[in-house]
Amino acid sequence: MKNFVLKGNICYSVNKSEIKVFPDSYLVCIEGKTVGIFEELPQQYKELSLVDYGDKLIIPGMIDLHIHAPQYAFRGMGMDLELMEWLQQQAFVEEAKYSDLDYARDAYSIFAKQMQKSATTRACIFATRHRKATTLLMDLMEDTGLITYVGKVNMDREAPQNLCEKDADSSATETMEWLEENRSRYTRTMPILTPRFLPSCTNELLEKLQGVREEYHLPVQSHLSENPEEITFVKSLFPDAGFYGDGYDKYGFFGKEAKTIMAHCVWSEEEEVVRMKQNGVFVAHCPASNMNLSSGIAPIKRYLDEGIKVGLGSDVAAGQSESIFRAMTDAIQVSKLYWRHVDSSCKPLTFEEAFYMATKGGGEFFGNVGSFEEGYELDAIVLDDTCIPYPQELSVRQRLERAVYLSLDLMGICAKYVAGEEVKCCRTHVLT
Amino acid sequence: MKNFVLKGNICYSVNKSEIKVFPDSYLVCIEGKTVGIFEELPQQYKELSLVDYGDKLIIPGMIDLHIHAPQYAFRGMGMDLELMEWLQQQAFVEEAKYSDLDYARDAYSIFAKQMQKSATTRACIFATRHRKATTLLMDLMEDTGLITYVGKVNMDREAPQNLCEKDADSSATETMEWLEENRSRYTRTMPILTPRFLPSCTNELLEKLQGVREEYHLPVQSHLSENPEEITFVKSLFPDAGFYGDGYDKYGFFGKEAKTIMAHCVWSEEEEVVRMKQNGVFVAHCPASNMNLSSGIAPIKRYLDEGIKVGLGSDVAAGQSESIFRAMTDAIQVSKLYWRHVDSSCKPLTFEEAFYMATKGGGEFFGNVGSFEEGYELDAIVLDDTCIPYPQELSVRQRLERAVYLSLDLMGICAKYVAGEEVKCCRTHVLT
Repeated sequence: MKNFVLKGNICYSVNKSEIKVFPDSYLVCIEGKTVGIFEELPQQYKELSLVDYGDKLIIPGMIDLHIHAPQYAFRGMGMDLELMEWLQQQAFVEEAKYSDLDYARDAYSIFAKQMQKSATTRACIFATRHRKATTLLMDLMEDTGLITYVGKVNMDREAPQNLCEKDADSSATETMEWLEENRSRYTRTMPILTPRFLPSCTNELLEKLQGVREEYHLPVQSHLSENPEEITFVKSLFPDAGFYGDGYDKYGFFGKEAKTIMAHCVWSEEEEVVRMKQNGVFVAHCPASNMNLSSGIAPIKRYLDEGIKVGLGSDVAAGQSESIFRAMTDAIQVSKLYWRHVDSSCKPLTFEEAFYMATKGGGEFFGNVGSFEEGYELDAIVLDDTCIPYPQELSVRQRLERAVYLSLDLMGICAKYVAGEEVKCCRTHVLT
Repeated sequence: MKNFVLKGNICYSVNKSEIKVFPDSYLVCIEGKTVGIFEELPQQYKELSLVDYGDKLIIPGMIDLHIHAPQYAFRGMGMDLELMEWLQQQAFVEEAKYSDLDYARDAYSIFAKQMQKSATTRACIFATRHRKATTLLMDLMEDTGLITYVGKVNMDREAPQNLCEKDADSSATETMEWLEENRSRYTRTMPILTPRFLPSCTNELLEKLQGVREEYHLPVQSHLSENPEEITFVKSLFPDAGFYGDGYDKYGFFGKEAKTIMAHCVWSEEEEVVRMKQNGVFVAHCPASNMNLSSGIAPIKRYLDEGIKVGLGSDVAAGQSESIFRAMTDAIQVSKLYWRHVDSSCKPLTFEEAFYMATKGGGEFFGNVGSFEEGYELDAIVLDDTCIPYPQELSVRQRLERAVYLSLDLMGICAKYVAGEEVKCCRTHVLT
């Protein structure tokens, strides 16, 4: 059933400056795509099944451009650390456990179930370097109804022996086996090439992965310019690279040859920013992570103004929560601190810009996704804000901002649709 | 019933560097005060009634040193503004409505109920300048079981006519009438003198309020050095004051003559910091507010290291949430950005420091409050974190950090005790 009508208070971004609001209106979906929003339902759609959500809010599903599934288990813990020590003491220790498929099943089942309950309809997910556990994660994500990219991580150096892959060759071979065993296995779950970050990959591995990418026509996800110490380290490892991103670009992992997401971009130098724009790299802005790991504040307003593609990432577990509502408000908040403390020529992000990044901005990575404009794949979530009592009259726009600022998504959402199919989001809440 | 035993996983701050953890232990309360924590319950307490909270967490109640009750209605909305425009467009517009007692009753009932459900056991609350509505708020707060200070706001300039008080005289007179009508009216609710902030008060009003304070032996709450533009404005209004806080100190509103809370202290200059320390001023650190209004980051680590008294404030509605758990993680997060972007000699706050500020640090304003050390008034909340599934073994300390980072308080708490009396915290959650 991909032909239906939803009724309620409908909001979506048309661009980064404008959220359109249609109170008490009809959203018509035909073959999984929006055909229009109407105050009165036109005659030709009256035969379609209609779900009336009354006074609830209907908005596009959230897009999470950057999340680590195996880190979900330790979110919100061990936060008093910076990137490199956090990786060694927290992330790598936990990720090493995923060689054990039983543990992986326990942990990934929890992750998949929580993602299903969340406001997120599409996500780009890091697994671990383990082939079997990554396929298991893909099986579980397929069952959620979400549309996701999942990456088996590649890393052949600078990690503990029990997590590091033996060598470039075995890393590339495992990756191809993983791709082969998943060929035609899913309808909603897609592989994405995932070199962890430059410090984790030898030149040899990057070269081999370039071949894999070309053969399998894969998109790419990785990390970029997150932390000054990391950047210095990258410079020592890749002395020939003009800048961090240039190290990726040399191997075709920087947007030109393949659709690419780079998480963070907190400290990107001028040349890197220019290249990101030229190549159409997607920035996954992860403000909570950038705070928690003391990385800093990414100049996102500037990226948006320059026309760089930007979406939001929860970056669990460096970010403590999978809530993209939370990522929106975090993004606005840190942009205000950036304006105040770092660069007063870089204005704070507006709510409109944050909502755009969370939906249409990140959605572009998946095609025509993240908006209710005509022809867009219909990803929608339905919010019930009656658990927030208030004494005054409020507009739909005010209720939307409030729902986001209060992370209403964590209280549960009422319904969720992905590409025109309803997804069970079984989190329910009773606030009495 | 103020004599009882609670059993569970008990955590509390002894100082800003140490959280003590007692897994599966007994917390004994006699006449509303902690007498001790025991692994085995001593013989002499075996007759007391015991509540066994099993594997749940038992921690001190949260202390909110700064919250505006009349702003609760518009929390999470209109956030794309800076302090002075936010006051004019949001806060003052809403606060003017509280001349209408019916509206005040609707709005304050919601506020009181939500505070009852929250993790907060003690709070310092701004009302509006309206005497009757302030008394109504006090009646409602008394019924919640929380222990609070509530202030009728004084403001005789720089506000819209419908909110500004007529003159210094009528402001002072109304304040005394308010104090008289509340004399001996409450057991848990106390008045606090509340000149809004220096720009809102003429010299004449401050002089009169000084007399009121002396006559009624009141503590004081106000705002300090929140925003550079505000500070410049204060300098133009009070050319004789050496610094912002000196303007308060001239009238006995800066800790020396009376216990005083100053919210924000983001931009306090050196002399002001010295005076705050000398006078024992309590800083209410409100990190969410300081982000939302683009005020900046307060150097809280430095204040703590210098021995200044610091607690946390939600500062609703400049802060979007009443969650002090959220204030803890916000405090840590912005301190990391301060270290990275502003002053690398000012280390990030630790979880221990944030927990201390949220409990014992702010609690000191109320006496021996905010810890489970012997002789402290027993304020406790009980947390059920079974709604957060996880695959690995976790320590109680890890579960505590996670509960705070995930704002578990917003999902509801299981039980709440204030000075040894149980408070109905009727928010329940069912996460399936």
